[in-house]
Amino acid sequence: MTFGDSLRETRNSFGPLCVGIDPHEHLLRAWDLEVSARGVREFGLRTVAASAGRVGVVKPQVSFFERFGSAGFQALEAVMAAARDAGLLVIADAKRGDIGTTMDGYTAAWLSPGSPLEADAVTVSPYLGAGSLQATFAFALQHGKGVFVLAATSNPEGRVLQRAVPHAGEGHAGSVAAEVVETVSAWTRTAEPDAALSSVGFVIGATVDRADAGLPARLSPAAPILAPGFGAQGAEPRDLARLFGPDAHAVIASESRSILSAGPDPVALAARIDERRALYSEDQHG
Amino acid sequence: MTFGDSLRETRNSFGPLCVGIDPHEHLLRAWDLEVSARGVREFGLRTVAASAGRVGVVKPQVSFFERFGSAGFQALEAVMAAARDAGLLVIADAKRGDIGTTMDGYTAAWLSPGSPLEADAVTVSPYLGAGSLQATFAFALQHGKGVFVLAATSNPEGRVLQRAVPHAGEGHAGSVAAEVVETVSAWTRTAEPDAALSSVGFVIGATVDRADAGLPARLSPAAPILAPGFGAQGAEPRDLARLFGPDAHAVIASESRSILSAGPDPVALAARIDERRALYSEDQHG
Repeated sequence: MTFGDSLRETRNSFGPLCVGIDPHEHLLRAWDLEVSARGVREFGLRTVAASAGRVGVVKPQVSFFERFGSAGFQALEAVMAAARDAGLLVIADAKRGDIGTTMDGYTAAWLSPGSPLEADAVTVSPYLGAGSLQATFAFALQHGKGVFVLAATSNPEGRVLQRAVPHAGEGHAGSVAAEVVETVSAWTRTAEPDAALSSVGFVIGATVDRADAGLPARLSPAAPILAPGFGAQGAEPRDLARLFGPDAHAVIASESRSILSAGPDPVALAARIDERRALYSEDQHG
Repeated sequence: MTFGDSLRETRNSFGPLCVGIDPHEHLLRAWDLEVSARGVREFGLRTVAASAGRVGVVKPQVSFFERFGSAGFQALEAVMAAARDAGLLVIADAKRGDIGTTMDGYTAAWLSPGSPLEADAVTVSPYLGAGSLQATFAFALQHGKGVFVLAATSNPEGRVLQRAVPHAGEGHAGSVAAEVVETVSAWTRTAEPDAALSSVGFVIGATVDRADAGLPARLSPAAPILAPGFGAQGAEPRDLARLFGPDAHAVIASESRSILSAGPDPVALAARIDERRALYSEDQHG
């Protein structure tokens, strides 16, 4: 079963909401936890417990664990294992990016079956060229894993780079973001010609103006979109269909603060997840 | 003392050579070490022992440690601590990049004094905009640490993105790589107006055609350049001055395979480091 298939199945059952596991320092304090590896472990495990059976996907933000070094990674391993054991799909938000055998190391770390940091998918960064990530895509597909490539983000500092124009006359897309999408899509056309949803998708911020970013109105082939920006960051669940149009079916809407602020009480946290998830239900889109 | 000052001092004593600590699987086998966290630890510690007193800077490649999860990070912590204890400057080649508090997590992980993963400098990736990394630059400067921002690399897949043209009429540079350099340089002009060498520099491949990449012929203000591509990757030490012109004084030339292939015998490894270092000595440039 490919990651694209797993994601479709999960999304059919639970909808698009993904719980971001972001153990910010202020949240650790609010949850009465240590600002330490032990604290992020406990925070992550509680969030997983509240998420299991309520959503299909969780997204731990690696930097909040990495901050505590190897002990933080040990905590992350425990959190990801607990999530996968609970039947959740885990997207490790690591934004790794390198070339050649160095990139292979990151791929092995996050996508190898049996690896201590095994996730179901990982986010990657294409500054060295989306083409340099093809071995990662191939490895992912071969092992039922997924990849989300940074394409267009909503932070203002990212605008100049992501909208820069590749040199004309070389058959390139109209913006860096579009070139990333096209490089990946070309790969998918060959590697997964018949997939209903591909295994290599994109990070596209919920509030990104896709036309302005040079992105096509519809991804072809259909690819998963990890969309931060819902909840506390400003995009409304009811606007998902409008914001993503024909790609809405492929969107994983990541929320963290809007959910995690309901903790630490497990009942309140679970209730908040249910509440947020309901905002994405189909009849709310009508 | 700023990182720029430390780097100048170290470079005056030892020259530009930096030993890349890249425990590839094939090198682990050649050194008769386990392909495991234990193996990369031993590999790293031996490389540090051979480097101490011979070069000024080492650059562990994080992915080769990350591959083994938290145990790999524990190994990396031991290797970086041994290097710093031996008086070597440590550049953690992590290529992290994110925004806001997420980026702060990476900054704390790699640049916080006392952090388990404390390095002297870290490499970062600017896909989300070099402007999104300013809090990292400020933190680094405040704590005597350094940052190397990916600017122009020599891998062919990186070309389209790094040479894409930011929209005209907004005061931007002529290429993405140049825009990264200009955004960082503008920050440095304000933050370190009198530095002989700044604390926030760039990764620029040794074989990059700087004019073709849209980069200025001379960085202003002077900034450290981490240059992969010497040794086994093709650039010759004697060409450093020609390749980098007026910036040659600021170049840290990273070699890994050309050195590590001499192991595991510690005498042979040390001899190879001496041999490679000698190739960069000033009279070889004449």
